[in-house]
Amino acid sequence: MKQAIFFILDDYADWEGAYLANILNQNDDWQVKTASTQRAVTSLGGFKTTVDFLIQELPPDFDLLILVGGNSWGLKNHKVTDFICQTLAKGIITGAICGAVDFLAENGLLTGYNHTGNAFILWKEYPDYQNADKFIEEQAVRDANLITANGTAPLEFTQLVLKAIEFADQETIEKSIAFYQLGFYQFCKKYGSPF
Amino acid sequence: MKQAIFFILDDYADWEGAYLANILNQNDDWQVKTASTQRAVTSLGGFKTTVDFLIQELPPDFDLLILVGGNSWGLKNHKVTDFICQTLAKGIITGAICGAVDFLAENGLLTGYNHTGNAFILWKEYPDYQNADKFIEEQAVRDANLITANGTAPLEFTQLVLKAIEFADQETIEKSIAFYQLGFYQFCKKYGSPF
Repeated sequence: MKQAIFFILDDYADWEGAYLANILNQNDDWQVKTASTQRAVTSLGGFKTTVDFLIQELPPDFDLLILVGGNSWGLKNHKVTDFICQTLAKGIITGAICGAVDFLAENGLLTGYNHTGNAFILWKEYPDYQNADKFIEEQAVRDANLITANGTAPLEFTQLVLKAIEFADQETIEKSIAFYQLGFYQFCKKYGSPF
Repeated sequence: MKQAIFFILDDYADWEGAYLANILNQNDDWQVKTASTQRAVTSLGGFKTTVDFLIQELPPDFDLLILVGGNSWGLKNHKVTDFICQTLAKGIITGAICGAVDFLAENGLLTGYNHTGNAFILWKEYPDYQNADKFIEEQAVRDANLITANGTAPLEFTQLVLKAIEFADQETIEKSIAFYQLGFYQFCKKYGSPF
């Protein structure tokens, strides 16, 4: 069983990891586990989530790390920085969206990667963000083992992560994303009814 | 402070209420509270949610009821049926999406309402579903105080609910939905950058 760790903080963005967590956790080969710096966090939408792991309890081996955006990524926490840095260095596929990319930028963790995010203008005062020339104005970007996205791109983010982990063949992944991106009726026109 | 109750069951669909909960709960005039038949539920994506209210603890007055879809709406529970029936009868704005609409259909709670849902063919064996002629093939439908939607329509659902509760003027609501529906770059082309 492969394990995906969804790392969330207080005021995490409900919609950003929602599609991806669902697709992974409904698959027999994957299991979603949540982690944070504290046992219980509340989403921006007011949902109270009890996480599976505190950061110090995380298993050494997992197959995917997802950093869900939100309003608390301004945190200064060496455990979190080190954990993400080590995960990237191991080559584990890592996805960061919205506020979580701000954290990567602030802590120099985008270095070497083509990337996107909400807007690099937000990061101009971060001394450790040194590759604004590698900011790509797209909804979501993959470079090697890092996928980044802005907060309006949960589906584009999901698609790139699923491709990166080779969740299924490209066509199957694109079709599963199109179901949500087009909506039921437009999807049926293009692909036929799933019923 | 207006209160929105998000009613969720085990295996609730992470993405279906996510946009709406966020928009409401970030507004100074609204507060999102969660409710269920049990204290803790797990989403389809594997997120463990502790709810604010058991169904029997719900306050008598609230301003919006959202029934989030998922895989446990086949439940037989008179408390749930009665609660939804009474909420609708009081004229309180009620939104149901995906599996939650299946529950309304099975329990005769769509009677009198134009509605949509995942597909009425799924409901043909429900004796209390008697208005298949009022099923509208659209992503989301509002009729009086009931908003229904299929599971690929969280944004269309959000838009109709926000309009029903007069959350803001129509243009503001449509723009806030367009931000997520178009994605950041297409949104900027149409409306200019929010930064």
